[in-house]
Amino acid sequence: MANQIVPESHLDILRKRSFAHVATLGPNGELHSSPVWFDFDGEFIYFSTTKARQKYKNLKANKKVALSLLDPDNPYRYLEIRGEVEQFIPDEGNKFIDKLAKKYLSLEHYPFDSVDDERVIIKIKPLKTSKMG
Amino acid sequence: MANQIVPESHLDILRKRSFAHVATLGPNGELHSSPVWFDFDGEFIYFSTTKARQKYKNLKANKKVALSLLDPDNPYRYLEIRGEVEQFIPDEGNKFIDKLAKKYLSLEHYPFDSVDDERVIIKIKPLKTSKMG
Repeated sequence: MANQIVPESHLDILRKRSFAHVATLGPNGELHSSPVWFDFDGEFIYFSTTKARQKYKNLKANKKVALSLLDPDNPYRYLEIRGEVEQFIPDEGNKFIDKLAKKYLSLEHYPFDSVDDERVIIKIKPLKTSKMG
Repeated sequence: MANQIVPESHLDILRKRSFAHVATLGPNGELHSSPVWFDFDGEFIYFSTTKARQKYKNLKANKKVALSLLDPDNPYRYLEIRGEVEQFIPDEGNKFIDKLAKKYLSLEHYPFDSVDDERVIIKIKPLKTSKMG
């Protein structure tokens, strides 16, 4: 699928096992940033979090986000994506986090959560990018 | 030197050739994030930018920053540092960016800039951290 926002030259970074460092903004203007696994469907970026995490709370209040990604095969290529939350989607049966565990760890099931963690899929609409390399 | 803010268990990430993804806030509330090389003296974190870059402009107006760092040897260990700019320091003779080129590329001189780039050292005071792994 053609993507209007992410430059063709850097789409490969979104297809790899790269990490997206997700920056969000807290209620008192404090910045938060942490690395996540993600999926990309050619238009939207999807990552997983739990309802207990700071980035979930931040994004519920302010849907703006910036993602910073290095090419895992060449750290002098990177992609930054600014965007916003398009949708919060319940991760029923943890199917999405299991899909990411398959992509990143080649495992059938995500091995880390406790049973109490309520997983949510964050669907991000890219609005603007910058790049290097 | 003892560091009160960064946990002992994760100081090693700051000693490695890791990348810090630097999140800053723009004048209209837009988030910016991009990877940088850095130096750490046991208390402060230092990275280089130029006066033309968005993150320099953002930090001049709002000194809050969040740094997200993966352990290059184990992506399931990470460190997040929230802090603020302590000082903007002119990089006279490009000595600091050359020091980083030595650390990251084992080169005597930084090979990328044009002669017009005015390099600035951003000195960051860590205020709060979170970690995984």
